[in-house]
Amino acid sequence: MIGPVQNVKVGQIFTSRRALHDENVHRGLMRGIAPQGSSIVLSGGYIDDIDEGELIIYTGEGGRDPETGRQRTDQTLTGGNAALAKNYVEGNPVRVNRGGNLDSKFAPDSGYRYDGLYMIDSYWSKKGRDGFAIWRYRLVRLEGQPPLGQVEDEGDQEDIGVSSFGTVTPARSNVTTSRVIRNSAVGNKVKQIYDYKCQICGISLETPAGPYAECCHIRPLGKPHNGPDTLDNVLCLCPNHHVLFDSHAIHLSDEFYVVETGEEIRIEREHNLNAEHIQYHRNLVSVKT
Amino acid sequence: MIGPVQNVKVGQIFTSRRALHDENVHRGLMRGIAPQGSSIVLSGGYIDDIDEGELIIYTGEGGRDPETGRQRTDQTLTGGNAALAKNYVEGNPVRVNRGGNLDSKFAPDSGYRYDGLYMIDSYWSKKGRDGFAIWRYRLVRLEGQPPLGQVEDEGDQEDIGVSSFGTVTPARSNVTTSRVIRNSAVGNKVKQIYDYKCQICGISLETPAGPYAECCHIRPLGKPHNGPDTLDNVLCLCPNHHVLFDSHAIHLSDEFYVVETGEEIRIEREHNLNAEHIQYHRNLVSVKT
Repeated sequence: MIGPVQNVKVGQIFTSRRALHDENVHRGLMRGIAPQGSSIVLSGGYIDDIDEGELIIYTGEGGRDPETGRQRTDQTLTGGNAALAKNYVEGNPVRVNRGGNLDSKFAPDSGYRYDGLYMIDSYWSKKGRDGFAIWRYRLVRLEGQPPLGQVEDEGDQEDIGVSSFGTVTPARSNVTTSRVIRNSAVGNKVKQIYDYKCQICGISLETPAGPYAECCHIRPLGKPHNGPDTLDNVLCLCPNHHVLFDSHAIHLSDEFYVVETGEEIRIEREHNLNAEHIQYHRNLVSVKT
Repeated sequence: MIGPVQNVKVGQIFTSRRALHDENVHRGLMRGIAPQGSSIVLSGGYIDDIDEGELIIYTGEGGRDPETGRQRTDQTLTGGNAALAKNYVEGNPVRVNRGGNLDSKFAPDSGYRYDGLYMIDSYWSKKGRDGFAIWRYRLVRLEGQPPLGQVEDEGDQEDIGVSSFGTVTPARSNVTTSRVIRNSAVGNKVKQIYDYKCQICGISLETPAGPYAECCHIRPLGKPHNGPDTLDNVLCLCPNHHVLFDSHAIHLSDEFYVVETGEEIRIEREHNLNAEHIQYHRNLVSVKT
């Protein structure tokens, strides 16, 4: 069951994993990722987790030594890890719970706290602190929920979702999440260079108000990637190729062709791409297909 | 000049249109829409304007009797109207100014107030109160700006932009705007019905975590359209066709083909589209091309 749970409030405390399970907040008594990736528990088991409250970098499951808690093999994109990745692609929200044993200032004093809905903003793999590949998920808390640690009022329950445009106030049973397409001065510049044509397929979407293209950041913006909003880190793509690039269906080679298809991409002389950013993107998700 | 203006603060008051012009906040002394659509002035000239503060429904220019202020001919998608439409497509922010003579609780007591950056969320044409076609623009205020009527601090100046994901804090000179792709339970349903294939072109975007498609609302969500988030009001589209549909490059006929191209769209038996919503979308923007 994706989304909010009947009769459970954001901020509510549960005494044990058993209680979380029985109330359908997080099914299962041991694993951090519930079936379908509908919920997770942050309990401090993974040394690579980062908890900034509204923003979480969460480590996938598997590959750990049950005795020491250290990674001893690579994590794979299967089970709960694949389920979370699917929720990224589908835009499904994830229920987040924090345990009292979590080493974070956002942890509850004891027991487990249901902290409401987050959406998965991106996911990638990298070498963890123990030297093995881990999967990571960037979770961002949805707006319209009470501040972390505060229990929601009855009145809050109609308001969950991303409502950054001030108008979508979905009912509690119908949470809305969003993918955000950013634009900026650099975006306008790269679109002008390519005359709004996709650098991969050459398509330009004609609308009554002019052509449309998207600015795609190669090394992602924001923590933890901190890619720059600069011309050497962006591509002019059609929305379809933007999705394929962001979701790691396609990558660029150092010679500027699409690794997965062999297509050459168009590069204008005035557009100097940074090879390090291209490598960074390529190294985020290398899945054998 | 798109975006913020050097040495001008959000919330700053100007005594006259001349002062707004001289400070480059709104170029021109008469027109409501500046060149390039980089700024607008709300001064109560158009009876169809709606001002809810963070949300504005703005009427385009032209067709008014200068004596009475009433519409006497249709407005056309040219001049300032075309410039605002282009800013919608390109994701450029618009500087909004309110005049003291505006009939709104958000108007300043006197003179003109620069109220910061808004983005154009959608645009459409409709018959105005005087019976002639007008162009309308839905403007939503960017986050990270001081509350309306409050003058920004020096410290605020690094923070303008849509930052709903808590991580993009673009410098003042590099404002970021966003297009939001929404998902919900209804969206998941329609994608499942079509197996993530676009109802228009049949494409399914394959990613390492599964196929990707978008849920497109036919009658738009939110004020003033108030389309429902229901299965009879959504389509399963690839991102490219979603952009074309939202930007009114394409419309559906009552017989479910694409008016502009003649393509038949795929409709499954369990997917009953509401003809009124299709007509509503078709009537939003009917541009002769």
